[in-house]
Amino acid sequence: MMKEFELIRQIQRQTSASNDLESGVILGIGDDAAVVEVPAGLHLVAATDTLNAGVHFPEDTSPFDIGHKCLAVNLSDMAAMGAVPRWILLSLSLPEVDPHWVESFMAGFNTLAQAHCVSLVGGDTTSGPLSISITAMGLIEAGRQLTRSGAKPGDMIVVSGTLGGAARALELLQSGNPAAERHLLDRPQPRVQLGQTLVGYASACIDISDGLLADLGHILIASKCGARIDVSRLPQPEGLGSVEEELKWNYQLSGGDDYELLFTISPDHRARLATWSNQFDINLSIIGEIELQEGTRCTKPDGTAYNAQSTGFEHFRHKT
Amino acid sequence: MMKEFELIRQIQRQTSASNDLESGVILGIGDDAAVVEVPAGLHLVAATDTLNAGVHFPEDTSPFDIGHKCLAVNLSDMAAMGAVPRWILLSLSLPEVDPHWVESFMAGFNTLAQAHCVSLVGGDTTSGPLSISITAMGLIEAGRQLTRSGAKPGDMIVVSGTLGGAARALELLQSGNPAAERHLLDRPQPRVQLGQTLVGYASACIDISDGLLADLGHILIASKCGARIDVSRLPQPEGLGSVEEELKWNYQLSGGDDYELLFTISPDHRARLATWSNQFDINLSIIGEIELQEGTRCTKPDGTAYNAQSTGFEHFRHKT
Repeated sequence: MMKEFELIRQIQRQTSASNDLESGVILGIGDDAAVVEVPAGLHLVAATDTLNAGVHFPEDTSPFDIGHKCLAVNLSDMAAMGAVPRWILLSLSLPEVDPHWVESFMAGFNTLAQAHCVSLVGGDTTSGPLSISITAMGLIEAGRQLTRSGAKPGDMIVVSGTLGGAARALELLQSGNPAAERHLLDRPQPRVQLGQTLVGYASACIDISDGLLADLGHILIASKCGARIDVSRLPQPEGLGSVEEELKWNYQLSGGDDYELLFTISPDHRARLATWSNQFDINLSIIGEIELQEGTRCTKPDGTAYNAQSTGFEHFRHKT
Repeated sequence: MMKEFELIRQIQRQTSASNDLESGVILGIGDDAAVVEVPAGLHLVAATDTLNAGVHFPEDTSPFDIGHKCLAVNLSDMAAMGAVPRWILLSLSLPEVDPHWVESFMAGFNTLAQAHCVSLVGGDTTSGPLSISITAMGLIEAGRQLTRSGAKPGDMIVVSGTLGGAARALELLQSGNPAAERHLLDRPQPRVQLGQTLVGYASACIDISDGLLADLGHILIASKCGARIDVSRLPQPEGLGSVEEELKWNYQLSGGDDYELLFTISPDHRARLATWSNQFDINLSIIGEIELQEGTRCTKPDGTAYNAQSTGFEHFRHKT
């Protein structure tokens, strides 16, 4: 059994490489707080998310994947704002101090952190049920953040990547079936570069954590408008190809944990979508349109209405 | 049973009053992240702390006091840096959604937040064992933060308030005795104004969360020096007056959760201590001196060495 002080030293040792001259870190891990520099003309963007074992990831998830996912979820919030993520605070509650677990967790965390050039600058470790709270801090040019409130009737509704894969993988796992697509649940890819690129173009943006309909609903309420979704245009991962149509739509409409970006954008920018799709090698699908009439209307390929069922995928996790 | 969306609305409603024009909040609760403005010439100071039920507060602590304490602990980190706290992110894991619990928790949180003019700007709510993660963000003039690393031989060692009261209250509670001093455990007062006043004077500063010897040790390691502590000068709360001398010293030396400031300062500034003490109505005690020789030496009133016992107050909670 390793002492807690050793644990912090281990975390510090594993992460020190990411604090370089360009990082803006004035004071990193090892004091009562971190100190960072926000350049003039930029605003600070900050979000926090907690992931609890058994709620946000299956108990048997590998520590490497937990380290990846808890950071990915927070970077996804930065992406949804169009922000450049810079600094991370990590609060780790562990039932016991296991250096091997922590090493693997930090390896997953650091691999993603380095890919996005973010620096771990502080946090705390504590005793408790396995839980990870992360605060991501990033930068955005003053007044340029993407919000939920700018969608306008006539805007296209666009989603990145594919939908429903994480929910399908979770359901297969829970029913005891080996899930070939488990990486969709365990290794979401935050669309950070795409989010930054959308600044100045997208009228509203959110990341899909609670499911398409739930998160689209946040945009519609904030923007005071409605939407029409064409269910046949919802992008599907390979694993959903063999799934019965209505079940598939439910995964895509209501499944959480995909962490794709959902944004609205004027049809004037339609041609840019293909450019961005090539640039970032990310599928971008136009799945519907913003309308004046409030609420969301889903239509089937034959033009008739599709009423999404209550799905049971909903989990108790929401942003305040 | 209240729905989660309602819960967030409730939190938002209870806190919206604190976001005024002076708050620097560009975008508060209700989007994927908060956006705040860091004025030119200032650096951002950020710290996070998680409090778990049964670890950082007794299971039977009132929600009002939990709301107070989880914010107090984070404001105390701002105080230890000399920073002006501005913005808070709150991540709340709850076993069930109980609107009365949340209302009382937020009342405790908001009372302290308003006293220190900090704004709740975002966070998340989630399902899980009762746990609260808070990130505090504050401001400091560039390069002026108080750190752990500036203590010099000859500096006085000073502590605010009293020591050992929280540990004593916890022990009484755990042994089934009614603790008249329970407020010392449940309602720590972050020394925010004092911390800001120390900027430019204190050579090192930390807040006492893990106990005097443990937290002084962090200063000594960071500053590469040692210390002599005169145990008879350790400030005691009323409740410790009747406790046997060596047990009392152990509470004072090793008891955690007092959240007082521990700082080192040149004897040139000795006269300022009385001024600050009057100004903030806080006891400030010179308890020892920084020395060249590494390690901490405690001396009894008769001048002989006092070896603090291993106390059992230690809990698994450390800053990274």
